[in-house]
Amino acid sequence: MNERLSNVASWLSEKSYDAAFISSTENVFYLTNFYTDPHERLLGLFVFPNTEPVLVCPFMEVNQAKSAGWKYDVVGYEDHENPWELIRAALHKREINNIGRLAVEKEQLSFLRSEELKTLYQDVVFESVEEKMNELRVVKTQAEIDILQEAAALADYGVEVGVSALKEGVTEMDVLAKIEYELKRKGIREMSFSTMVLFGEKTGDPHGNPGLRTLKKGDMVLFDLGVVLDGYCSDITRTVVFGEITEKQQHMYETVNKALEAALSASKPGTRIGDLDMIARNLISEAGYGEYFPHRLGHGLGISVHEFPSMNRTNDDILKEGMVYTIEPGVYIPNIGGVRIEDDVVITKDGNKTLTKYPKKLQIIQP
Amino acid sequence: MNERLSNVASWLSEKSYDAAFISSTENVFYLTNFYTDPHERLLGLFVFPNTEPVLVCPFMEVNQAKSAGWKYDVVGYEDHENPWELIRAALHKREINNIGRLAVEKEQLSFLRSEELKTLYQDVVFESVEEKMNELRVVKTQAEIDILQEAAALADYGVEVGVSALKEGVTEMDVLAKIEYELKRKGIREMSFSTMVLFGEKTGDPHGNPGLRTLKKGDMVLFDLGVVLDGYCSDITRTVVFGEITEKQQHMYETVNKALEAALSASKPGTRIGDLDMIARNLISEAGYGEYFPHRLGHGLGISVHEFPSMNRTNDDILKEGMVYTIEPGVYIPNIGGVRIEDDVVITKDGNKTLTKYPKKLQIIQP
Repeated sequence: MNERLSNVASWLSEKSYDAAFISSTENVFYLTNFYTDPHERLLGLFVFPNTEPVLVCPFMEVNQAKSAGWKYDVVGYEDHENPWELIRAALHKREINNIGRLAVEKEQLSFLRSEELKTLYQDVVFESVEEKMNELRVVKTQAEIDILQEAAALADYGVEVGVSALKEGVTEMDVLAKIEYELKRKGIREMSFSTMVLFGEKTGDPHGNPGLRTLKKGDMVLFDLGVVLDGYCSDITRTVVFGEITEKQQHMYETVNKALEAALSASKPGTRIGDLDMIARNLISEAGYGEYFPHRLGHGLGISVHEFPSMNRTNDDILKEGMVYTIEPGVYIPNIGGVRIEDDVVITKDGNKTLTKYPKKLQIIQP
Repeated sequence: MNERLSNVASWLSEKSYDAAFISSTENVFYLTNFYTDPHERLLGLFVFPNTEPVLVCPFMEVNQAKSAGWKYDVVGYEDHENPWELIRAALHKREINNIGRLAVEKEQLSFLRSEELKTLYQDVVFESVEEKMNELRVVKTQAEIDILQEAAALADYGVEVGVSALKEGVTEMDVLAKIEYELKRKGIREMSFSTMVLFGEKTGDPHGNPGLRTLKKGDMVLFDLGVVLDGYCSDITRTVVFGEITEKQQHMYETVNKALEAALSASKPGTRIGDLDMIARNLISEAGYGEYFPHRLGHGLGISVHEFPSMNRTNDDILKEGMVYTIEPGVYIPNIGGVRIEDDVVITKDGNKTLTKYPKKLQIIQP
């Protein structure tokens, strides 16, 4: 078994659980290197403490699983078959006739699937596997960091394209379309979330939706975007000013940028995660914008665009080498405008490295 | 209450259920006109047989719900609050202190949420609300059909853009990027699924992924795409030939097109749904391609890109005025190539109307 599967198996053994049933695209990918979203069809991975794992997937995807490196049993089912009966038979052959304590992804497993599992193994009791999976995924290997770096470079490129597309009269959607066009031409099939391009007063709403607002001199422009590359996500935010700038805008920008730099400086092994949020928040509050920074400092980044660790002030966990997360302080003044700046950061042996490299010095784009 | 909510309330009354808890973005939108995806946060709508419904959503979205027309109670919660405690208090105020039989979306509700509901109401027994919601959603109103028509026109436009972008040496991703670019400039924020543009032998795989394959003379080109407009989806497929055509390709194309036309002719109130699949499938089999048509004829279309009815041969339901679905026969010969043609169809009083209007006559695009 690969190291990740062995980790889960040992954990099951420690906990005296009979098995884990893992069914989210992300965790199956993490454990098997097989990335698939079967929509309403069943995908699942049974891991056991003392015997080899079993993968369950639609028959037409069995070959893809094998090409991705899966070497153990696979239960492949056709649309007219009941996958649960095939699972029962396959496990029975392996002399697994009952499952008592079963670790599942409680936030992801549907109630219907839990009923189906109960029909199969009547004594089943559900435990949570989520904490363990989060703990495993939170520290990245060098191979994962290499992909995240490449994904971040494409996010940088997206901002570059966006900034070059700014001219008087273009709409937010024009610029957004241009960014995704150039990324897709490079082979990117999915953005990691719905791309955001906001102009002027619309930057003042952290949940604003891009639309047909046109660009005019004096507008702040906020880009927030990322790509999915080989199953891993990037996420960058940059804010620039178009044409001319007020002192107020400049003050907001410098405040947010200082908050980001301060949180970056504190990003090293051993720092309490919640302290990063506090450091950035205090700087923003001291500058008079405390009430305008309504969200946490950032979030972990990897196979999911939002994963562990959560960069909020109550998080008492400690930064470790290999953790990857965003730092994204922001200040949003309703109907006036806002600034957010976001980097993707990896914790190194004695400090950190930013994966996103697009410049953070305030840019005033000339029309 | 609006008619949709009243329908659910009457159904609860008939079934002697105490309440329904509806938490999918799609069904909440259908019943409230409030479209939101709160990700890991709780969204939910309690409907009761004899008293007004209650909506639960993040506090920062309460105003959006009201602007969307919600007139009843809302439980808005902040991130640091436990929404379940607020729900208990709000329902207690309405003298609802216990819920026994609760209709939920079993395929959508997470196991964790089911545990949370059980903690709140210890005697709760979960019933399924899905069949009722599917039954309500399967027949569209004129207002829904109007939006679906507009969404289909944008899908037509997407194919038009794609066809104009074909020239020797372009990649699948170049053409895909151009299609989405032009749609996004028109204000479309989301495609209804991952756009597909495939060239040559790649059209022979119904699950092919667009990539950096370049276009050359003699290639079939398959487009499959759709947009989300005001919460409703479109979905079109067209196949064209680039440069020159073989007899074999022409025969495949004409076969698939005849199968589509035959299923269209049979699309009227009263037809058994499964018969449409059989009619198309028989034509394809008679032409010698039976083994190369591996999927159902189509699927319902509305708020979800795949919804009821399912257009498979075992579906004994009967077509009714107002149903909207796709007809999309296909023939795929591995390593050779494939053809799929897909229309969005609405059942009218005495027949049908296609919402997608891009020509289906075989087109040979000149380089």
